[in-house]
Amino acid sequence: MPDILHRVGVEGSTPQQVYEALTTIDGLSAWWTTDTKGSTDLGGVIEFRFVPGGFDMEVTTLKPAEQVGWTVVGGPEEWVGTTITWNLHQEDDFTIVLFKHEGWREPVEFMHHCSTKWALFLVSLKALLETGKGAPSPDDFHIDNWN
Amino acid sequence: MPDILHRVGVEGSTPQQVYEALTTIDGLSAWWTTDTKGSTDLGGVIEFRFVPGGFDMEVTTLKPAEQVGWTVVGGPEEWVGTTITWNLHQEDDFTIVLFKHEGWREPVEFMHHCSTKWALFLVSLKALLETGKGAPSPDDFHIDNWN
Repeated sequence: MPDILHRVGVEGSTPQQVYEALTTIDGLSAWWTTDTKGSTDLGGVIEFRFVPGGFDMEVTTLKPAEQVGWTVVGGPEEWVGTTITWNLHQEDDFTIVLFKHEGWREPVEFMHHCSTKWALFLVSLKALLETGKGAPSPDDFHIDNWN
Repeated sequence: MPDILHRVGVEGSTPQQVYEALTTIDGLSAWWTTDTKGSTDLGGVIEFRFVPGGFDMEVTTLKPAEQVGWTVVGGPEEWVGTTITWNLHQEDDFTIVLFKHEGWREPVEFMHHCSTKWALFLVSLKALLETGKGAPSPDDFHIDNWN
């Protein structure tokens, strides 16, 4: 089963700071989409909305400064049931973010698109923490004719 | 076996124009690495060099305006023997680039890094064709403590 994998390093941030950008509405809305609502507690559902639609994520893992896990419980058919895992660790002055979006049933063209979009959103997360300003939707970087 | 998948759309370029950016030394050196040499003919080997090392790609497929295939014949151990496929097609005013880097033996941390780097180099390819200026190495976007 094909997975989407990425790695970014956030310079000058601790794993705890990156963790907060992944586990608070304020943090998430500053790098992924400004239209973010819901509960970021364990078992809660976070609602991410974009111009063309959105994703509902159940929070399945919260290990402070170490790991965040989500299961997609609402959104495009290809996403529902897939899981997203964020692993954090420190190397020198960087917090390394290892990202995995797994459980895709087929390597469809939409998966190619999402892989590239995730990379740009990870760069947005990095920029948020390093410079104070991310590029969340609707001001995200558009990679193709789909978004 | 895990694959890296990406999709970008190059607005205002034909598949033939994108194909040329993937099959000429001038094109390749303007979006991937300025230090690009070798033969871009079928069966030729293209040598891509970066500050920390490089990749040698044998050109295995050349279907004008449609598909380019490379096999990695030199470079980091994790890359040797893997294959890279570029599929091009037109949608409205976009040339859609479907990118696949397959044959990775293990989803190692280096593969996460390469997936994110590829996304940024695809954005560099898009920028080159849309604006005349890419971001090839050594002026590429650095995503983490590795590069």
